[in-house]
Amino acid sequence: MKKVKIYITLKQGVLDPQGKAVQDSLNTLGYEDVLSARVGKYMELTMDDHADVEKQVEEMCVKLLANPVIEDYAYTVEEVVVS
Amino acid sequence: MKKVKIYITLKQGVLDPQGKAVQDSLNTLGYEDVLSARVGKYMELTMDDHADVEKQVEEMCVKLLANPVIEDYAYTVEEVVVS
Repeated sequence: MKKVKIYITLKQGVLDPQGKAVQDSLNTLGYEDVLSARVGKYMELTMDDHADVEKQVEEMCVKLLANPVIEDYAYTVEEVVVS
Repeated sequence: MKKVKIYITLKQGVLDPQGKAVQDSLNTLGYEDVLSARVGKYMELTMDDHADVEKQVEEMCVKLLANPVIEDYAYTVEEVVVS
């Protein structure tokens, strides 16, 4: 079994109102050291063992999980040891 | 300057309708190898150098970024080399 961790973030240059709101809130709470904040999505998939897991993950990111126009995606694939 | 990467996920046992929806969609698209999906938040903060960055990040997660009742958080702190 595989555990896939997917990180989806807005591309540089794309306005991130959610990130701005987080930064403003943190600064208001007294954390002035926070210079910027970007908010994205984090997904964990468990997948059956398959020859081309990486190919499938790429396809899933492009087709469904990320919007290629405004979002970047990155992922890691780990072996899950089933005890 | 520091780059803080924060991963916020629902605790095990907490229902994840968003994750279920992602899994169902992926299975419908033909990716039957996807056995489960969990959706969370991913944040990147840039912060000024500070003696207790880690302490601040813990506080920010508990106070604002994560809901300690239903969410877990994890983070990494990296040095950003400003060229």
